[in-house]
Amino acid sequence: MSTLLEIDGAPVRLTPPPREPRTLRVALAGCGTVGGELVRLLHQGAGEIRARHGVRVRLVRVLVAHAGRPRPSELDPALLTTDLDAFLAEDADVVVEAIGGLDPALRIARTTLGRGRRLVTANKALIAAHGPELAELARRHRTRIDFESAVAGGIPVIRALRDSLGLTGIARIRGVLNGTTNFILTRLDEGWRYADALADAQARGFAEANPARDLSGEDAADKLRILGWLAFGIRPDALVLRRRGIDPDPERLAADARLLGGAPRLVAEAVQTEAGVVAAVEPVIVPSAGALGRTRGEENVVVIESRANGGVALSGPGAGGSPTASSLLADLVRGAGRLPRPAPVAPLSVADTREHRWALSVARTQAAGGILERTLSRAGIVSTAVLADGDRRVAVTGPVGWQRVDLALRALSAERLAPVVSRVEVPV
Amino acid sequence: MSTLLEIDGAPVRLTPPPREPRTLRVALAGCGTVGGELVRLLHQGAGEIRARHGVRVRLVRVLVAHAGRPRPSELDPALLTTDLDAFLAEDADVVVEAIGGLDPALRIARTTLGRGRRLVTANKALIAAHGPELAELARRHRTRIDFESAVAGGIPVIRALRDSLGLTGIARIRGVLNGTTNFILTRLDEGWRYADALADAQARGFAEANPARDLSGEDAADKLRILGWLAFGIRPDALVLRRRGIDPDPERLAADARLLGGAPRLVAEAVQTEAGVVAAVEPVIVPSAGALGRTRGEENVVVIESRANGGVALSGPGAGGSPTASSLLADLVRGAGRLPRPAPVAPLSVADTREHRWALSVARTQAAGGILERTLSRAGIVSTAVLADGDRRVAVTGPVGWQRVDLALRALSAERLAPVVSRVEVPV
Repeated sequence: MSTLLEIDGAPVRLTPPPREPRTLRVALAGCGTVGGELVRLLHQGAGEIRARHGVRVRLVRVLVAHAGRPRPSELDPALLTTDLDAFLAEDADVVVEAIGGLDPALRIARTTLGRGRRLVTANKALIAAHGPELAELARRHRTRIDFESAVAGGIPVIRALRDSLGLTGIARIRGVLNGTTNFILTRLDEGWRYADALADAQARGFAEANPARDLSGEDAADKLRILGWLAFGIRPDALVLRRRGIDPDPERLAADARLLGGAPRLVAEAVQTEAGVVAAVEPVIVPSAGALGRTRGEENVVVIESRANGGVALSGPGAGGSPTASSLLADLVRGAGRLPRPAPVAPLSVADTREHRWALSVARTQAAGGILERTLSRAGIVSTAVLADGDRRVAVTGPVGWQRVDLALRALSAERLAPVVSRVEVPV
Repeated sequence: MSTLLEIDGAPVRLTPPPREPRTLRVALAGCGTVGGELVRLLHQGAGEIRARHGVRVRLVRVLVAHAGRPRPSELDPALLTTDLDAFLAEDADVVVEAIGGLDPALRIARTTLGRGRRLVTANKALIAAHGPELAELARRHRTRIDFESAVAGGIPVIRALRDSLGLTGIARIRGVLNGTTNFILTRLDEGWRYADALADAQARGFAEANPARDLSGEDAADKLRILGWLAFGIRPDALVLRRRGIDPDPERLAADARLLGGAPRLVAEAVQTEAGVVAAVEPVIVPSAGALGRTRGEENVVVIESRANGGVALSGPGAGGSPTASSLLADLVRGAGRLPRPAPVAPLSVADTREHRWALSVARTQAAGGILERTLSRAGIVSTAVLADGDRRVAVTGPVGWQRVDLALRALSAERLAPVVSRVEVPV
């Protein structure tokens, strides 16, 4: 099956080239910020998708509301259609829905799954309102529905709950789920005015032209309903939750948090109590140094606490076209892909030529007469500081590659010095 | 298909009971800390696994080295065997390997996959040495191999890379991957002696009787090889990496970090450079407030930086029987399970009776004459502090349920006061 050879002392196997890739026909509904970014990722990543997942993704149809709008240059204009029926009649393996809202998303979802085709959607409102119904439809027709991008943008939290943590006995799930409000609250915390913070969020593509659903907490509530379904098995539309947004006075909210010495966050949480699962979306003044307080700007975080598995935290970009499209892409190829096959000749690791600062620490008794500094200097290493503490001396170097440090260590060893070595990433 | 009714104003659907569950026959190799915990989780979670994933897990054989050792009370002693050939001949759907090391784990893996059966393993040494070969074997025999628990205990990082982030154009992966050394470094940072910290780690089941592979960084290197494979497609056994452990003098390492004002961490990283992927496991003095510095005790963290998806961080328990067994369980039911089906009657959310502290903030001009405090007091709410700042007054309550706060808000509204309300989780 494979030939073994050695390069630089490391074994490298020559494996036969991967089989001819299977083609995955994809129909895309919606080509705005997220859909357009997916078109770009599919184009740029075609080679990698083929190499790693053995699959060739082919766009077969793109549904848009307005034919005349500018589209990514990677998109073949002949694929565009504004005709929903023609779109639904297309023979695709997977339909990606990146429109949002319920109409026509619900019809697209039902038709796709009802025909036994896979559905990938970024639509949190759709899943919050109809998730279990669509999951049952997928089950009956032996296909699947995926919606990683519907919650927390580029953070794979749906996958984590669905495939990994769902059976650990979840006690509480809690997080920052709305990038727009978190971006605004972070800006306010930095002293911005609300109007400027909102305009900035809109300019960066985090906030909609009408941000009411973000500010009121409705967007976060939809996402919490989805997480509650996956964590506790509660129908998203049956979860009773208390909701308060950051409107009408986000500036005062931020000022109150500052006054109390914490950070303002719109927190979504669902908690298993003895009586049942309780849920809320509301402003909370949290410690600045905690997992939620440190989640800044458009970032999201989800903390999942469970009986068997302690607390697992996932954080990352919660908004923006590129992270959301990344999650769509992951859902798209998941059924197709397995573990990455190394390239015919594995891309070899190479010598690390990066430079770092290093701390070399020796016992003071051994380091008499400046031997540490002199040996370092002879090895061409300039130390920015030599600190003495208790019984030892610690030299901190300027930026230098590890090979040179290794040379210096050999020279020091000849002097019977064996320093403790660390890389340094703090200012000295 | 379903009947709709309302309970407490929330729609609840009565769905038909799930179909008769499929049985998944599982053979378990190894019944130590991790394997024993898996037996317990399977027993305790049987109902939930059946309800959520429509599958009944049945242990059919358990391979152990010593028949006489104490085993979990949940385990039927008739399932035990010390005969490897008899174990391999068992007709199981999935084999779970929780022994560690290469012998007989490699033989178990090859036999299982070669017969087209699924393999689930916690064995990082096995995957670091033979991962791609076993993946290819699984592919040829149309089955799969899963090893979530081999890296970072209860954190679903394998799943995240394999299914979600692998195609985002990863630029750097970096983390704390060894719970034992991190537990020891955290203790040293708190002023413990090394011998005591190691003994404590061993007593808690984080460190092996012989912790040499942890201290030398070999364990973290195995895990980094696996992550490098999933992130960059490099064969784990071909990754060239520089390695330095926390031995021989962890106390001095911690003291050096303290002297420089940072936290000592054994950092594993693989970075895409222009020349190729470079990798290292070595002690790094990191900022205490950063993602790695805040990872304390037996926790692990993995930060994945990518072109399309910014930085995603996953943190949680990196060691211990229960988190590791949770990951085994997730791998076990993944092929079987889909989205959770809500129970025939969805467990209803209930009124939130938890108590929190709250901040209520009003304009000072509106709050003349202590109206805020008096109204709160009439609603039965004791405020622990009333702070004045600029043009407003902020009352912070003692622990009280949200219903009472809502009552108070209605009373304040009658006085034409509309406070900004936040929950408070910082000390006041």
